[in-house]
Amino acid sequence: MDPFRLRDNILEVLDQRYLPDREIWIKVYDAFDGAKVIKDMAIRGAPIIGVFAAYCLYIHSIKSPQTLSNAWKALKGSRPTGINLHRVLEEVRGLVENGAKPQEFYEFARMVENREREINEKISSYGLLLFDKPKSVLTYCNTGSLATVGLGTALGIIKLAYRNGLIKEVFVGETSPYMQGARLTAYELKREGIPYKVVPDNHMPFLISRGYIDLAIVGADRITKDFYVFNKIGTLSIALACKRFGIPFVVAAPSTTFDESTFSEDIEIEKRRDIPREDYLYFAFDITPPDLVDFIISERGIWKVGSG
Amino acid sequence: MDPFRLRDNILEVLDQRYLPDREIWIKVYDAFDGAKVIKDMAIRGAPIIGVFAAYCLYIHSIKSPQTLSNAWKALKGSRPTGINLHRVLEEVRGLVENGAKPQEFYEFARMVENREREINEKISSYGLLLFDKPKSVLTYCNTGSLATVGLGTALGIIKLAYRNGLIKEVFVGETSPYMQGARLTAYELKREGIPYKVVPDNHMPFLISRGYIDLAIVGADRITKDFYVFNKIGTLSIALACKRFGIPFVVAAPSTTFDESTFSEDIEIEKRRDIPREDYLYFAFDITPPDLVDFIISERGIWKVGSG
Repeated sequence: MDPFRLRDNILEVLDQRYLPDREIWIKVYDAFDGAKVIKDMAIRGAPIIGVFAAYCLYIHSIKSPQTLSNAWKALKGSRPTGINLHRVLEEVRGLVENGAKPQEFYEFARMVENREREINEKISSYGLLLFDKPKSVLTYCNTGSLATVGLGTALGIIKLAYRNGLIKEVFVGETSPYMQGARLTAYELKREGIPYKVVPDNHMPFLISRGYIDLAIVGADRITKDFYVFNKIGTLSIALACKRFGIPFVVAAPSTTFDESTFSEDIEIEKRRDIPREDYLYFAFDITPPDLVDFIISERGIWKVGSG
Repeated sequence: MDPFRLRDNILEVLDQRYLPDREIWIKVYDAFDGAKVIKDMAIRGAPIIGVFAAYCLYIHSIKSPQTLSNAWKALKGSRPTGINLHRVLEEVRGLVENGAKPQEFYEFARMVENREREINEKISSYGLLLFDKPKSVLTYCNTGSLATVGLGTALGIIKLAYRNGLIKEVFVGETSPYMQGARLTAYELKREGIPYKVVPDNHMPFLISRGYIDLAIVGADRITKDFYVFNKIGTLSIALACKRFGIPFVVAAPSTTFDESTFSEDIEIEKRRDIPREDYLYFAFDITPPDLVDFIISERGIWKVGSG
């Protein structure tokens, strides 16, 4: 399962807003179209958006090389908070400024894709070290093939563990309000044939308290210099319950997630504006302090963090 | 605002399933109708259901005194887990068996109603002791006028505190999947003119971690002999976050909630069967251990519980 595919110089994007009910593929003819599907959240997941943007520039360089510079800007403005997207766009800036040939954009996109795939393979392999025997695992949000290239980060570990006979069952929080767990992670688990259950987010500490869970693995949007983990809001409740009830809490994320330049207190958590009612309040992320995190896994290795 | 009203020997029940969007009143002509609206969840909240059942027997004794015994049984079977309902029905059993006059059922119903009102007034008064200055308060689910007689239990404290100038703002978890917080508590707070925001349940630990909350107050469905608090699932995440970030966590409930005969390990948490999808798992309650509870408030007083 790929979140997008390249066919005859057109990109086809699996519209994640309608999963798992409907598999709708959106045709993307150039990078302006590509910027729009990113903006509209038809494709989401920090790592995949960088790869997708690189392929957008490739098809754009075939169709309309004269507007490459504007296309690059459109992609740049499509997701202000996506660290991976902006890294990839900075990397490719030279090719855009020099008006490079399609073949060069294609090679760049392939390089970004392969790099991402290798990162995830390494994360999954390191993740296997968490399993000395089959375990029931809790995860949250979506960190799988729909968000990345290959198996995924946190969900990639779970898939590889399952293929090695090391997963009893997966529990996934539905991830309100966008339901990435209930919709996307459930969709991926079902396709892999992995036994799973979706629960409302408020059930996660209860499951941890009652022996349903042996291990919790989540992704991260950003990890600061002082090891505070910014991830989809709801993560903190998992970490608090794991600490209280003695269950390992693990964060899996590529090393590009590490933000060496920022301390936790410098980051403001933004309010979301797409609220359903005036009297609602939404935030995107919460912050898990390092003493609640047992291990962090990236493509560079596995680290013990909290004083377990 | 009352969850039901008596008019010309008919009970009119505010259908809580449609709040806050629509105020629909269901006419209840006898106790069989009454048992149905309890079963269908048109009326919910442990304390109010006992009072409502007493009034159902009153109107039934006017209309069909010959079927009082069957009517009593129908009410008995309408909500197996409602401790208050079963206590009230046991209290009134003698009147049913003796074929008492409507006037006697009326006086019984008034007595139960007034007793409930006094309990809540005392709980609210004790709750004021929590406020040395105006505070921002987190609450969960619905423990207000729609669930009880009078102001409510946990929400009753908040309302009385507001009338005394001691509430800055209220935050309420939406209480997935039935949204009692988003629908019912929000509705009551709005009618009282109290400033509030609804948040997804997964936001509650984040709000506590970031200084939004000075105090958390919730209700309880059952408190065991060893002081474990059974309440709407999601409560545990609030208690864990309060402990971690040094915010007082308070439980307010009538003394009838105290189950002196049962220890926490004897109680099985039931799975709910009304799931939207096969791959979902729902539970009704979670269990908060006593060391996470700072205070318990009932009509008998305020107790320090956890080692704060």
